[in-house]
Amino acid sequence: MKVSIINIGDELLIGQVTNTNATTMARLVTAAGMEVGETVVVGDEPGDIRSALQRCMEASSAVLITGGLGPTKDDMSKKVLCDFFGATLVENAEALANVQRLLEQRGMPLTPINRQQALVPDCCTVINNAVGTAPCMWFEHVSGCVVVALPGVPFEMEHLMRTAIVPRLANHFIHGHILNKNILIHGIGESFLSDLIEPWELALPHSIRLAYLPQAGMVKLRLTARGNDPNLLQQQIDHAVSALYPLAGQYIMGEDCEDLPQLAHQLLTTKGLTLATAESCTGGTIASSLTALSGASAYLRGAIVAYSNQAKQDLLGVQPDTLSTHGAVSQATVREMAEGARRQLHADFAIATSGIAGPSGGTPDKPVGTVCIALSTPSDTQTRTCPFAGDRLRVVQRALNEALAMLITAIKTQS
Amino acid sequence: MKVSIINIGDELLIGQVTNTNATTMARLVTAAGMEVGETVVVGDEPGDIRSALQRCMEASSAVLITGGLGPTKDDMSKKVLCDFFGATLVENAEALANVQRLLEQRGMPLTPINRQQALVPDCCTVINNAVGTAPCMWFEHVSGCVVVALPGVPFEMEHLMRTAIVPRLANHFIHGHILNKNILIHGIGESFLSDLIEPWELALPHSIRLAYLPQAGMVKLRLTARGNDPNLLQQQIDHAVSALYPLAGQYIMGEDCEDLPQLAHQLLTTKGLTLATAESCTGGTIASSLTALSGASAYLRGAIVAYSNQAKQDLLGVQPDTLSTHGAVSQATVREMAEGARRQLHADFAIATSGIAGPSGGTPDKPVGTVCIALSTPSDTQTRTCPFAGDRLRVVQRALNEALAMLITAIKTQS
Repeated sequence: MKVSIINIGDELLIGQVTNTNATTMARLVTAAGMEVGETVVVGDEPGDIRSALQRCMEASSAVLITGGLGPTKDDMSKKVLCDFFGATLVENAEALANVQRLLEQRGMPLTPINRQQALVPDCCTVINNAVGTAPCMWFEHVSGCVVVALPGVPFEMEHLMRTAIVPRLANHFIHGHILNKNILIHGIGESFLSDLIEPWELALPHSIRLAYLPQAGMVKLRLTARGNDPNLLQQQIDHAVSALYPLAGQYIMGEDCEDLPQLAHQLLTTKGLTLATAESCTGGTIASSLTALSGASAYLRGAIVAYSNQAKQDLLGVQPDTLSTHGAVSQATVREMAEGARRQLHADFAIATSGIAGPSGGTPDKPVGTVCIALSTPSDTQTRTCPFAGDRLRVVQRALNEALAMLITAIKTQS
Repeated sequence: MKVSIINIGDELLIGQVTNTNATTMARLVTAAGMEVGETVVVGDEPGDIRSALQRCMEASSAVLITGGLGPTKDDMSKKVLCDFFGATLVENAEALANVQRLLEQRGMPLTPINRQQALVPDCCTVINNAVGTAPCMWFEHVSGCVVVALPGVPFEMEHLMRTAIVPRLANHFIHGHILNKNILIHGIGESFLSDLIEPWELALPHSIRLAYLPQAGMVKLRLTARGNDPNLLQQQIDHAVSALYPLAGQYIMGEDCEDLPQLAHQLLTTKGLTLATAESCTGGTIASSLTALSGASAYLRGAIVAYSNQAKQDLLGVQPDTLSTHGAVSQATVREMAEGARRQLHADFAIATSGIAGPSGGTPDKPVGTVCIALSTPSDTQTRTCPFAGDRLRVVQRALNEALAMLITAIKTQS
């Protein structure tokens, strides 16, 4: 049983907005044990929407569509679906009540354009959208294919997918099971890792598929097991993971996490440890990667983004001598930044970064991509200088991962 | 002339990684005056890759493919292209020299698996990838369709697109011109905006297409003009923009920017003003949204992420009395945070946030989504309390946009 995803919108097609809806939807569909066959983006053109719909309906048992349900003139999906299913637009009482309720809550009047949101093709089942004014529509085609039209606003779509659409689809279609397992690897490149673990990879059972997912400075290995017996799949996954450690254990940072911020978050939370950051070139990215996760307030004491030398002295107690002798991008400076942040914010651990993210600011001695990182722990302070390649965002991402890998290793060694 | 984009990878298909490659590629293709017809994601299945390729070649003049070129076993693209074009894999001397050069730079040996990266179908033109080991391949089909296979690593793909592929495609295919214009709107919802500007929208010439792109708490209007005469298109765009101000001027934050961080960055830079942030619930997101932009070090004095009450007192000078009387999430507290950050970091402006991002931490008085924001300027400090809806990330994004809108309005009013 395959699911196709069609995300509609010129803004997605021309790249003005990144299509995170496909990510969220595919993740939810996969986690429920269904398989995504294809995801497609088309613009606000009725002809393109219609042909993508037709093709996806031939290839899949269910087609999920987002976008084009809004009240504005560039929103085409409802018209296309109406034509496609030979239906008529009718006002749906429940959808109208929902629009009225939401507008009332916001203290706004019901305008004619808002009232149009309650119009739906008369052949669909309306699924109430508790968090937005565009109704969600469930169609069952004579071919057996299910077509679902969802609003394109990410949090409305996600709410509907989680609470209504995924459970309904699973009820309708599910056969077999899928198990996923992530292993986070740091400190070895993709091709060297591939050489190192080749014998292990060749010995994996047919039910398990392996993917290498390189992130900035690290690789996530994903094992996906498919079959009918969930217990057998779990045993196969467990066996594969155990067999990986003798080969690559020294590079394995953790399991069952999407990335290093999530892993650091888990470790700090379960061990009751606290963290502070002092960020220059990463500019708050380490703190915000952690505060994006619910519960970060339990361990993140705070962060100091000290871009200027003055701020490094005033807020972190870096010595003027250190800055003038070694420069802002130096192991001596990040050491004092980390120790200052740990002291000022009363934290168990502190991370500090200072570097040249680019594209300007490089020198022959310290080219763009040079980043100094320090980790101050209850027992000592470690520092390192890394020569990262890539553009500004990539240098920041690599610094983030390197700093968190230092932290994770220290926490694991300590306990 | 249409371009199709195919991004290959199980990690994209199942939503473990967001497909930012489609965003970058579509943006570059569009900016060069070509039209994106469709973007598709398929998994690492030779059959799926082949049928997506076949279909896209029928619909488009050029097909850009990313992914599946790596050295590991889940990388299928080269085999599929070889079969499809009836070609044989041969070792390419230039590609091999590039692999050797890059490995040498990193102090690594040339392993057999790395050597495989230099194998390419014998019917393609190899385009050198200066920043990575996977070569880029340019195929010209007898039908006239151009197929380009690029590495999936985002910064390698982007480097190749900018320096080689987009200029080559433009040379090959370009007819006509496309102009884009963004207008950032804050303080009015999408449907009310649509009502307000309906007469203007109906009067737009046929050559201009309008899109409403809602972001957290704001709407970006995008006008796209297509035609053969770039001067005429520019006149039409200019005329449309002028005509919008009498209707909606009070909500227009700025033009020609993608989002509010970019607009704030431009204003602060050109006016030589400085900024500090004191962030509680936004956790460094305001600072990192600005430091992601090159040149932020010229105006961003620093940021203090003060999650705990202790940090609010120690680093920002918030009075213990204020915290005990009004609570951490209060206008009184954010006022002192903003004033403290402005003083401590010697900045012209300071933004402060404190709120309940959720999902836990809400109370009947201060439900999840309550965020207090302050802006301290050289002349005064403004504060407001906002009731934001949505999940944790959305609350943070809305707080970010609200705070930057306050800042942008103050800078414009001041000057």
